[in-house]
Amino acid sequence: MKEKVAVIGVGHTEFGELWDRSWVELVEEAGLEALEDAGIKKNDIEKFFLGNMSLGMFGGQEHTASKVFSEVFDSNPESQILGRRIEGACSSGGLALEASFNDVLAGAHHDEDRIVMAGGFEKMTDKSTDEATKILSAASDMGKEVGFTFPALYGMLKDRYLEETEATEEDFDHIAVKSHKHASKNPRAQYPFEVSHDKVKNSFPVASPTKLLNSSGIADGAAAVLLTTVRKAEELGADYVVIEDVEGVNDSIALYEREDILTLVSTQKAAERVYDSSGLGPEDVDIAEVHDCFSIAEVLALEDLGFYPKKKAWKWIEKSLKDCSENEAPVPYELPDGRELFVNTSGGLKAKGHPVGATGIAQAVEITEQLRGEAGERQVDGAEVGITHNVGGSGGTAVVSLLRKP
Amino acid sequence: MKEKVAVIGVGHTEFGELWDRSWVELVEEAGLEALEDAGIKKNDIEKFFLGNMSLGMFGGQEHTASKVFSEVFDSNPESQILGRRIEGACSSGGLALEASFNDVLAGAHHDEDRIVMAGGFEKMTDKSTDEATKILSAASDMGKEVGFTFPALYGMLKDRYLEETEATEEDFDHIAVKSHKHASKNPRAQYPFEVSHDKVKNSFPVASPTKLLNSSGIADGAAAVLLTTVRKAEELGADYVVIEDVEGVNDSIALYEREDILTLVSTQKAAERVYDSSGLGPEDVDIAEVHDCFSIAEVLALEDLGFYPKKKAWKWIEKSLKDCSENEAPVPYELPDGRELFVNTSGGLKAKGHPVGATGIAQAVEITEQLRGEAGERQVDGAEVGITHNVGGSGGTAVVSLLRKP
Repeated sequence: MKEKVAVIGVGHTEFGELWDRSWVELVEEAGLEALEDAGIKKNDIEKFFLGNMSLGMFGGQEHTASKVFSEVFDSNPESQILGRRIEGACSSGGLALEASFNDVLAGAHHDEDRIVMAGGFEKMTDKSTDEATKILSAASDMGKEVGFTFPALYGMLKDRYLEETEATEEDFDHIAVKSHKHASKNPRAQYPFEVSHDKVKNSFPVASPTKLLNSSGIADGAAAVLLTTVRKAEELGADYVVIEDVEGVNDSIALYEREDILTLVSTQKAAERVYDSSGLGPEDVDIAEVHDCFSIAEVLALEDLGFYPKKKAWKWIEKSLKDCSENEAPVPYELPDGRELFVNTSGGLKAKGHPVGATGIAQAVEITEQLRGEAGERQVDGAEVGITHNVGGSGGTAVVSLLRKP
Repeated sequence: MKEKVAVIGVGHTEFGELWDRSWVELVEEAGLEALEDAGIKKNDIEKFFLGNMSLGMFGGQEHTASKVFSEVFDSNPESQILGRRIEGACSSGGLALEASFNDVLAGAHHDEDRIVMAGGFEKMTDKSTDEATKILSAASDMGKEVGFTFPALYGMLKDRYLEETEATEEDFDHIAVKSHKHASKNPRAQYPFEVSHDKVKNSFPVASPTKLLNSSGIADGAAAVLLTTVRKAEELGADYVVIEDVEGVNDSIALYEREDILTLVSTQKAAERVYDSSGLGPEDVDIAEVHDCFSIAEVLALEDLGFYPKKKAWKWIEKSLKDCSENEAPVPYELPDGRELFVNTSGGLKAKGHPVGATGIAQAVEITEQLRGEAGERQVDGAEVGITHNVGGSGGTAVVSLLRKP
């Protein structure tokens, strides 16, 4: 009998400029919230995997997991817990989810029902914006993309998309309007307010054609999900969701090495793998949390995940979102087959916030809450199947997971 | 049928001050050597886990795995490989081994025979010794052990051991003599030469009572091991060894929070777990690679792994090693039951070198070569069972693995 993996608890701090909170406090808050949600205790956990891009450069501390053990588990000598940090730039959270998923399956191979926490965090605002931007550049190729920032790298992608298609800058700007609308319904969001299309359009270019309001900000925050076997989830009586699969794939770290910079091969392959293993496809997905660090990234994600043909998403974006300001949240995309797809109901990286190591986990929190029907004013009625999509750098890593109601 | 995990290939660069080599070159060399050893190709690998403490602070690059994919796998678009970095300070390598071990078992749960690479590296000598020492301090509690270096922290352990037992400083110095003797037979060692007991005794105190020659140095290097199921190893006709188990446990990151600083509870618990699951005990172990970042660490490891009673190892060290200089390598410890135990035949962290992220993997390389009878002048005749022991910080993390001949 092949065991499946379940999410039995979720936790998620506020995202934002949290100068008065330490990174450990944020990790603790998210972790304890997940434990309380699952109705289990600290020492029921066997392992934790903590996604974090660079506490070393942001805060001068490595050996993060041991520090968490000390502060959160009170160094209880009875504890037999193993934590470690997982790093793959902005996909660190997704990679922690993938490792946790596989660790539960490894336990299942020996008929153990391990309870594993997948967490993620980043504490970025202790640095100035220019320092933080420089640290984030360490997710690109520091030997071969010297001097690029991420707004510039994604600006190149946007430039190319504008060149190869008939999309206009205005199409991209609708995405930010939609994300902020969703975030306005999310109490944990960094920017929980609406913005007008004009405001996005007229925001200043941080690395033209990337404008400020096409970009996610610098944020602090943490998120956590608790995984175990479906068997254990049932035994605990948890209100669980099933993770059908989590898959990740690498691509070149540098953009110049790719055949077509407008295709994130890592996303495509990771998505193919979760679709293949689950027997589900893009046509089954109701909700998606995709990696929209910049507006262009959401466009490419919608294509690479299979929702729209390559280089055609812009048409549907314009059609779906042009009256976005006037519609009630959540605002769906219309798919070519006439179905509706709700993307980044959380507000996404753009407006919920992007404390980079937390993002992949925060996406799983939003999907879980949606599938449980607990997303409040952001709730997508009848959502059955959800996908998360977390990217490292400009696509050097992508992690995709598929979740569904049991 | 419960699958077991096998090591089917190993690779290990020279350790030392490798100023003319980049970190990627080192990772590539170790990885390709492991592939060649196993007789498989790059794209046969499904995942890799790369132990590294702090390329961020040592070299300004994060998203390490994607960079490795780019340079080593030539960004082959047919590749479907997922790499990620694993961080737990000096136990990063051991944690990568643990994750790889579990990933193979997760595959086995679905009747897949995954081939997974566990690698580790550090490139430390691009920084000055004082800068590197400061970066390494990030493995301690940067909030509560401010201003301590690791020679100082381990110096406190040594001080306490000298206080609580009748051990003398000379007892510790024998360990360095033994390690250098072993390293003199290891072509990959950073310090492949013998030192006299007098030389160790008279070496200058870097953080009294820690002397220079009680300490491991600053080093560059990489190591890799290839894991898969025993079923696949047999199918490939590989000269494999079996990993019975890999277990890791956390303790408080800071020394002051421990009840007895002379007991590394993390080591004890991790060892108990591998002994319990394998049905083997310290009495079955022929060879051990233990985490001797400082001489005191080897003493504590011998006790915490169950080879000697607590606070008694010094007696046997003196007895076993006092004529070390005159004996042929490898020089064993005599155990209380009269058996011989060979420890750190590689030269250990002290003399083979300690590029911190590589260490946990390098230990598994040495044990594998010993169990295969390929350790050259360091060979322990008839070695059947080996243990590795990798510590993060001052014991905030410990990872122990048990390997045996098939």
